[in-house]
Amino acid sequence: MHLFSEKEIREVVGLNEKALSLIEEGFERLAEGAVSQPQVARVDLADKNGEVDIKTAYIRGLETFAIKISSGFFDNEKYGLPSLGGMMMLLSTETGVPQALMHDNGYLTDVRTGIAGALAAKYMAPASVNTCGVIGTGAQARFQVEALRLARGFDRVLVYGRTPEKVETYKKEMEEKLDVPVEAASSPEEVVKESEVVITTTPSKEAIIKKEWLHPKLHITAMGSDAEHKQELDPNIFQAADIVACDVYSQAVEMGELHHAKQAQMIKDPKQILEMGPLVKGEVSGRTSDQQITVCDLTGTGVQDTAISVYAYQTLKANGKGQEYQS
Amino acid sequence: MHLFSEKEIREVVGLNEKALSLIEEGFERLAEGAVSQPQVARVDLADKNGEVDIKTAYIRGLETFAIKISSGFFDNEKYGLPSLGGMMMLLSTETGVPQALMHDNGYLTDVRTGIAGALAAKYMAPASVNTCGVIGTGAQARFQVEALRLARGFDRVLVYGRTPEKVETYKKEMEEKLDVPVEAASSPEEVVKESEVVITTTPSKEAIIKKEWLHPKLHITAMGSDAEHKQELDPNIFQAADIVACDVYSQAVEMGELHHAKQAQMIKDPKQILEMGPLVKGEVSGRTSDQQITVCDLTGTGVQDTAISVYAYQTLKANGKGQEYQS
Repeated sequence: MHLFSEKEIREVVGLNEKALSLIEEGFERLAEGAVSQPQVARVDLADKNGEVDIKTAYIRGLETFAIKISSGFFDNEKYGLPSLGGMMMLLSTETGVPQALMHDNGYLTDVRTGIAGALAAKYMAPASVNTCGVIGTGAQARFQVEALRLARGFDRVLVYGRTPEKVETYKKEMEEKLDVPVEAASSPEEVVKESEVVITTTPSKEAIIKKEWLHPKLHITAMGSDAEHKQELDPNIFQAADIVACDVYSQAVEMGELHHAKQAQMIKDPKQILEMGPLVKGEVSGRTSDQQITVCDLTGTGVQDTAISVYAYQTLKANGKGQEYQS
Repeated sequence: MHLFSEKEIREVVGLNEKALSLIEEGFERLAEGAVSQPQVARVDLADKNGEVDIKTAYIRGLETFAIKISSGFFDNEKYGLPSLGGMMMLLSTETGVPQALMHDNGYLTDVRTGIAGALAAKYMAPASVNTCGVIGTGAQARFQVEALRLARGFDRVLVYGRTPEKVETYKKEMEEKLDVPVEAASSPEEVVKESEVVITTTPSKEAIIKKEWLHPKLHITAMGSDAEHKQELDPNIFQAADIVACDVYSQAVEMGELHHAKQAQMIKDPKQILEMGPLVKGEVSGRTSDQQITVCDLTGTGVQDTAISVYAYQTLKANGKGQEYQS
């Protein structure tokens, strides 16, 4: 079994076309029925303010598949530890024998989540984007905006965060990374009104984006909600939008924005909601006119985890990383 | 993170009172509502004749919990590999940080499954057992019978298997291990009729034990079925028995003998079916008279996995086993 550390993984695996195309292919296989993906298994450690999610998917045709363990322990600060952690186990699809343990502490999840955002934009954002707006200043506020460049160019970033210091750090870091101006907005409303693409990346438990702020030629990707109690979008948005999509409906309607949209009876016909698989496969159309308002709800799928893990494993081996554990 | 190999684990972890009491406590916590245990996540790799199950449970009060990956790839013989494999990841219940990877290839599952059988017998078998009958000659036919001694003494073992060579090997091995005579039966019927405790340990897809063979003072533990297509007991047995129990009803009714019993409409009132948690906690009574017929359906639970992993981790560390992986 190969063991890979977060440091090694960060050194060679990043946001790029190759990773995007592997995740895109994963979603194509999903649309073809060539994926076995059980429901997310969640362990609640309520008295510890902790939770662990397990995601996995077998994608036919790949040599390995991933079982991903993601942890969130929200009192970890008192131990000087990050809240989020995780790792991926890679098993042979031929024999089940473990091939690799990637102790990435959630880095690969950040990469594959950013890429799902890029795919949402690829099929749903307007052809030309001037301003990319982002709500939140954490890791995904960085990954999503950087990944968007795999799908669309943009001339500026408009960011809203509640903590001025974090906004300042974000601005500095991202201006250097992207070489476009990053400006601080005074409200989520300003972000939405001035952007063609808006990405919400918060752990919010109530709606941040209101329906009233929507405008023609807007695409929203909401990726913050991955549990039934999380929410970033006003449910009315799902009725106002011209096109609504998600990664996997059965999951988004349990864990994502669509959960709240359904509860608020804003989903008239589930069949009208597009899924990433048919979208990337071209079986359905995303945006069909420049003036449409589009929304995509991302909850994160095992397909993405297996796809990114296969990419990472190939890249890590090609770069001579890792160490062997003979068990 | 500590890494432990199958060899190291086998050297120091076995069937004993300490492991039994930890698993018993795990079931007590489950009965108290102090366990968070999601449904089993299953990945089907149908075109590879493979399947992977993921089980986990957080037991309040313990320092770590296990996420167990079990694989079954039934064409592995062509690669000279065993069909079954697996490992356990241990995470801190305080921070979610991975503490250990136990690459046990399913050994700890064998141990904890044997112990669940011992617990079933402890609460349900008649006080005095002359003959322990076992159907099957594989690993669990060994572990179950050995573990039974933690709950009941017995004077002989009666084994039925379809392959004479395997029966012969079983007989030799177990006579040496247990120091009681092991006899080969000519049929499952003979096993049932001559035993007070019968344990079924096969991957059968149709009933092996018939209702007509039941007799007073019989206890049956059926542990072979852990998927909806597997079955060892005639569903009528569930109506004929005086007491029916299982490890966890919600799981057994999906994956165990109770699945078939329910389909055959042999479960009149699910509340009549005892669960291991209340049984070990003394909230309900198992066998109350010597002449009763009792049946226990075991499917294997995350609680057992976490309990055995905690025991194994303590024991391995105390014996200086394992190696450190600094990731």
